[in-house]
Amino acid sequence: MRLKTILTIIAVAILSAAFSAQVHAAEQEPIQPLKPAKITNPAKVELGKQLFFDPRLSRSGWISCNSCHNLSMGGSDNFKTSIGDRWAQGGIRSPSVLNSSLNIAQFWDGRAKNLSAQAGGPIANPIEMNSTHEAAERVLNTIPGYRTQFKKVYGVDKIGIDQITDAIAEFENTLVTPNARFDKWLKGDKKAITAFELSGYQLFKDSGCIACHNGPGVGGSSFQKMGMVNEFKTTNPSKGRADVTKKDADRMMFKVPILRNVELVPPYFHDGSASTLTQAVETMGWLQLGKKLTPDQTARIVAFLKTLTGDQPQFTLPQLPPSSDETPRPDPFSKK
Amino acid sequence: MRLKTILTIIAVAILSAAFSAQVHAAEQEPIQPLKPAKITNPAKVELGKQLFFDPRLSRSGWISCNSCHNLSMGGSDNFKTSIGDRWAQGGIRSPSVLNSSLNIAQFWDGRAKNLSAQAGGPIANPIEMNSTHEAAERVLNTIPGYRTQFKKVYGVDKIGIDQITDAIAEFENTLVTPNARFDKWLKGDKKAITAFELSGYQLFKDSGCIACHNGPGVGGSSFQKMGMVNEFKTTNPSKGRADVTKKDADRMMFKVPILRNVELVPPYFHDGSASTLTQAVETMGWLQLGKKLTPDQTARIVAFLKTLTGDQPQFTLPQLPPSSDETPRPDPFSKK
Repeated sequence: MRLKTILTIIAVAILSAAFSAQVHAAEQEPIQPLKPAKITNPAKVELGKQLFFDPRLSRSGWISCNSCHNLSMGGSDNFKTSIGDRWAQGGIRSPSVLNSSLNIAQFWDGRAKNLSAQAGGPIANPIEMNSTHEAAERVLNTIPGYRTQFKKVYGVDKIGIDQITDAIAEFENTLVTPNARFDKWLKGDKKAITAFELSGYQLFKDSGCIACHNGPGVGGSSFQKMGMVNEFKTTNPSKGRADVTKKDADRMMFKVPILRNVELVPPYFHDGSASTLTQAVETMGWLQLGKKLTPDQTARIVAFLKTLTGDQPQFTLPQLPPSSDETPRPDPFSKK
Repeated sequence: MRLKTILTIIAVAILSAAFSAQVHAAEQEPIQPLKPAKITNPAKVELGKQLFFDPRLSRSGWISCNSCHNLSMGGSDNFKTSIGDRWAQGGIRSPSVLNSSLNIAQFWDGRAKNLSAQAGGPIANPIEMNSTHEAAERVLNTIPGYRTQFKKVYGVDKIGIDQITDAIAEFENTLVTPNARFDKWLKGDKKAITAFELSGYQLFKDSGCIACHNGPGVGGSSFQKMGMVNEFKTTNPSKGRADVTKKDADRMMFKVPILRNVELVPPYFHDGSASTLTQAVETMGWLQLGKKLTPDQTARIVAFLKTLTGDQPQFTLPQLPPSSDETPRPDPFSKK
């Protein structure tokens, strides 16, 4: 062999070892990089996107999924509780729809097992979209542009609620936010985060936050008691999992929220009682870990959390298929 | 000269003559094709787009320009009257924002001379966004991502309402919908519309609709009395231009609406009393021209009007710069 060839082989071997060490290091971390969404059925995703933005799914004709899960603002409305039909006050903080496919279940209390089961909820909830599944079907079946698409995607002549929620879920599955600076760091780009941010990550692990906020979502994979060490005081009536299981042991057990893009979606907690990320970190340290974090520690953890903001969904604003003469004209001011 | 060259010259001459005849024909029509928007300041357009979609300009933090001028649905909310802060009932049909730069003035009664003057209205209107210009400025000045952009676009350290409305107007100027089938026909593609649709255009001209609905917007260039020949009966309290000029002669004078994309935005008229295009055409024939159009005539005119739907705005859903800890947290359920 010639010297050049030998040197090349050695160089490749060194690079491979370095790369494998890096990958190995990332694999050892309790947080994993987000993978971009794989789109296998673009026609279904496009249909789901239109439905996500379509206010005609609501009784008033004004509220769409995007009204409370605003994809221009981190996938949420950023209120303590959401606004529903005729300005009804919702019961709970609207969670971000971003990366929600990573959740163990949907809603804070996990009452929906997946995204399509979730999507049917707000349509029929009297304090959200306040329609019915039948009314939503009736409206969509009068819209030729939807009929054509449902026929193409599902092979059906008559649109049903199961296809509606399935298409919405398919779109929501694409709402993944990869390439956060922290993910770049995990993948070996050591300059992607600052020393200050890295120290925040160390604190996040050393203090115990990581016990619940781990995995690719940095949360979303378990239910935990809100107020594990010290009691959480709130006027919000939700009892968490107990509302679903009716077991006293599940009182105040809530799905651990995903911390991806957390800086985009104040206020925090299921009752929205923490209006800044700083407050949220301080409160969690005390309630869940019994720790009084110093302002410096809190600032470092907050700085780390801000490295979790990834690429936001990038897509063309959908054009909704127009109503026909047969489409019911909504009257948002009619008596209930 | 060789024969080939001579033949080429002759062919070019014939084509030129044909083209010039065609252009001449299009120029003689009372409707002209829409020209695509020219974007000279993309950074300002992008900033205006973000503001157009930003609910933080409203008191509740929930209503954006796009709430009532929905760019997924023809630039309007498609209600008889719009929904405002705390579900307030608006006074009038929300006009489409599409091609609104072609209007002689803004609002049905023309009380704003241009788009930037218009944009300030809804922000401060108690039954629309119900904020104030000062509050809107205060909110935006706490958002670093806006401060950077306003600095870049306007060279200002402090964001003011004049720049806010100027940027929104700049974005709205881009909301032009060229390439309607009718425009293709005007430009010489005789197959772009059917014989039935063409007969509707002839009727539109012969019946007199064209007297007010002409130019590139097919309307938008004058104020006319609603109920010119026969009286328009409505419970809507608007008096049109008279509300602005206080002159009795201006009672029921409204801006002639642009008919571009009209199929996308039922219901019709300033009071939304015509729920289909068919009803709208019949009613206008009677009120404005004293004509009882036959169902066949109406159907032809409706078919022509549907050829006026152009390319809808195509852009990436904007990402809004996140609030900072200093940004006021809106409370949409607080007492007024």
